[in-house]
Amino acid sequence: MHIHYSCLAWEAGKPLVIEEVEVAPPQAMEVRLKILFTSLCHTDVYFWEAKGQTPLFPRIFGHEAGGIVESVGEGVTDLEPGDHVLPVFTGECKECRHCKSEESNMCDLLRINTDRGVMLNDGKSRFSINGQPIYHFVGTSTFSEYTVVHVGCVAKINPAAPLDKVCVLSCGISTGLGATLNVAKPGKGSTVAIFGLGAVGLAAAEGARMAGASRIIGVDLNSKRFNEAKKFGVTEFVNPKDHGKPVQEVIAEMTGGGVDRSVECTGNINAMISAYECVHDGWGVAVLVGVPNKDDAFKTHPMNVLNEKTLKGTFFGNYKPRSDLPLVVEKYMNKELQLEKFITHEVPFSEINKAFDYMLRGDSLRCVIRMDA
Amino acid sequence: MHIHYSCLAWEAGKPLVIEEVEVAPPQAMEVRLKILFTSLCHTDVYFWEAKGQTPLFPRIFGHEAGGIVESVGEGVTDLEPGDHVLPVFTGECKECRHCKSEESNMCDLLRINTDRGVMLNDGKSRFSINGQPIYHFVGTSTFSEYTVVHVGCVAKINPAAPLDKVCVLSCGISTGLGATLNVAKPGKGSTVAIFGLGAVGLAAAEGARMAGASRIIGVDLNSKRFNEAKKFGVTEFVNPKDHGKPVQEVIAEMTGGGVDRSVECTGNINAMISAYECVHDGWGVAVLVGVPNKDDAFKTHPMNVLNEKTLKGTFFGNYKPRSDLPLVVEKYMNKELQLEKFITHEVPFSEINKAFDYMLRGDSLRCVIRMDA
Ligand SMILES: NC(=O)c1ccc[n+]([C@@H]2O[C@H](COP(=O)([O-])OP(=O)(O)OC[C@H]3O[C@@H](n4cnc5c(N)ncnc54)[C@H](O)[C@@H]3O)[C@@H](O)[C@H]2O)c1
Ligand SMILES: NC(=O)c1ccc[n+]([C@@H]2O[C@H](COP(=O)([O-])OP(=O)(O)OC[C@H]3O[C@@H](n4cnc5c(N)ncnc54)[C@H](O)[C@@H]3O)[C@@H](O)[C@H]2O)c1
Ligand SMILES: [Zn+2]
Ligand SMILES: [Zn+2]
Ligand SMILES: [Zn+2]
Ligand SMILES: [Zn+2]
Repeated sequence: MHIHYSCLAWEAGKPLVIEEVEVAPPQAMEVRLKILFTSLCHTDVYFWEAKGQTPLFPRIFGHEAGGIVESVGEGVTDLEPGDHVLPVFTGECKECRHCKSEESNMCDLLRINTDRGVMLNDGKSRFSINGQPIYHFVGTSTFSEYTVVHVGCVAKINPAAPLDKVCVLSCGISTGLGATLNVAKPGKGSTVAIFGLGAVGLAAAEGARMAGASRIIGVDLNSKRFNEAKKFGVTEFVNPKDHGKPVQEVIAEMTGGGVDRSVECTGNINAMISAYECVHDGWGVAVLVGVPNKDDAFKTHPMNVLNEKTLKGTFFGNYKPRSDLPLVVEKYMNKELQLEKFITHEVPFSEINKAFDYMLRGDSLRCVIRMDA
Repeated sequence: MHIHYSCLAWEAGKPLVIEEVEVAPPQAMEVRLKILFTSLCHTDVYFWEAKGQTPLFPRIFGHEAGGIVESVGEGVTDLEPGDHVLPVFTGECKECRHCKSEESNMCDLLRINTDRGVMLNDGKSRFSINGQPIYHFVGTSTFSEYTVVHVGCVAKINPAAPLDKVCVLSCGISTGLGATLNVAKPGKGSTVAIFGLGAVGLAAAEGARMAGASRIIGVDLNSKRFNEAKKFGVTEFVNPKDHGKPVQEVIAEMTGGGVDRSVECTGNINAMISAYECVHDGWGVAVLVGVPNKDDAFKTHPMNVLNEKTLKGTFFGNYKPRSDLPLVVEKYMNKELQLEKFITHEVPFSEINKAFDYMLRGDSLRCVIRMDA
């Protein structure tokens, strides 16, 4: 019996409780991980609140983490006990058309599925309390001392990398960073607009800083976000509420016709449209990252398209978890990428509910949860 | 006095008449061309009909042509009398941000302006009859033995190239070809959908054939277009009217999730949306070419964007007229590109109204008009 402490969500929106949970051994193509650090992302909060999302309880949340392989299941050849890893909410089977395409990271087998609470191999959970199954979350469930993950959702990283820092690369930070570096690809000296200055948007700004953008214009409805944003290279700030005209027009005036690149990290449909329309004709590229509502419609005049403005979107910053994430960790190791500034809080596992409070109050960018404390 | 025959449109929709017109000498940065061959494009017909467009009469239409430089104005150093050239409805000043950008061909100074009937230098026309000015059309007015054009709208080409063939590269054929080769960029063996099988769409298909696409799916509301389309490499045909579901779903079923690339050459907003939605998630790229109506709205669910489908648009196939068109002519010269199949008719200048009839009846792809006959 492999019994450990996990953080359980028994009901939507109710405080989480830490309890003893049995974690079954990994099956074919699975690995069991010892989680050392995990951090909290909005997506955990959304599915815990389950307003609109399919409720699936009891469930173990958590999907940004760093850990060590404890044991491996049948057929696993890429990983062995002791490897340092980042589990990821989406995967890379290396065999489907997406994995074989250089352009896509939307693996057919392991693409995120928020409605699935079980493992692929047998359609069952690896977590239980006295035989009662506890649901998984996006294949990771990292709010737990031990978890079982499909090998395709595990990135093996440099063992010298501090897991309490690089754990934040499992989701939002890589998403924003990759949206800029892999998809928007601003040139040196270019102008970039970032819509939404949460963790994802600030990571997109960090990407623009790394790429050598000369102007990084932050756009947010919350002016408080600007102070923090300066640390991430944001040079100018626009609050759409301060202007009597659409923010795309304000940006066009500031930049002589539009920015070279924009990255939308809000999830708000109006921001998506503005982010598209604010890029310069001829060469502008807009990248959408925010997750929209079910009934949203992206709407623009087709002349914007004809005028050679490109619209792109990205999922997990176009990173392939196993192939690319180890290289992002290396960017941190050689000091190209700064991660410390994203980590505003740290709590022991026993105080995980505090991490939820910080996020709900909008106080934290990332709160890292130490599992051994 | 430099008096020659030109084809005059005195009133919207009325038969054109050939009359003697005085063609003034080229001013600063202008050249006077002797036109040898010109072909008819839909855009000439639209502005001649002037339903919706600003009427500007009397006017000399024509914008696809091949000719020879007769004389050059002050400051012209790139061209000299005797050079073989293609005049183009849009230009390349080589000095604005667009011309300096590798990505854009939307020159600030010389971008198409259908409302301007005069030359930039002095705001006046170079054509007159007994002192009455006759308006220019998109800076080219090639339905004339002689015309005056801004040097930035003239591509100097290989003098060995037969002008009666390469004249069709001045507009629609290059637009479709470039949309595929420069913007959609299908890989060898890829699947491509072409919406609209007029001259522009067939040129887009020709580009897909040249790029080595394995399947080229032609989409048109007019099934008659398919027979001709086979010559252009189109391998399959879909008429949206034959199906009880949206054509993007039909194409997704035919291709296991969507095509790798699509090029829309209809001008119809529904086709634009279908062309976008029919590309595969992860890597699909859709390119819009058709000119929409004023009140059209491009509308799609933002999840299509998030799923990594790219939307692009292009103007003149992203070719820079002076830098790139000579190289397209070379593609014809070395037999990579086939132009003969686009030229379905030929008439002497005196019978130019026949060219309008062929196009209005939908019988012609391109009708070449011989000026010396
Ligand atoms: N595509 C992916 O793979 C992926 C991964 C992680 C997160 N996301 C999405 O990225 C988005 C941002 O995530 P986050 O964690 O940074 O969120 P966040 O809530 O911390 O930040 C969003 C910011 O956008 C601002 N905002 C909202 N509407 C706006 C508008 N109309 N104009 C300007 N600013 C506006 C808010 O004030 C807030 O500061 C979310 O939609 C999230 O779901 C996508
Ligand atoms: N962007 C540019 O630089 C540029 C340059 C030249 C032409 N154009 C535009 O390209 C478009 C095509 O030009 P063309 O000369 O080939 O026109 P065309 O009229 O010869 O061909 C258009 C074809 O589209 C088909 N069609 C119309 N609606 C459709 C729909 N909903 N679904 C499928 N097929 C549909 C028609 O049946 C027709 O066969 C026009 O809109 C033209 O204005 C753009
Ligand atoms: Zn895969
Ligand atoms: Zn997340
Ligand atoms: Zn220019
Ligand atoms: Zn034309």
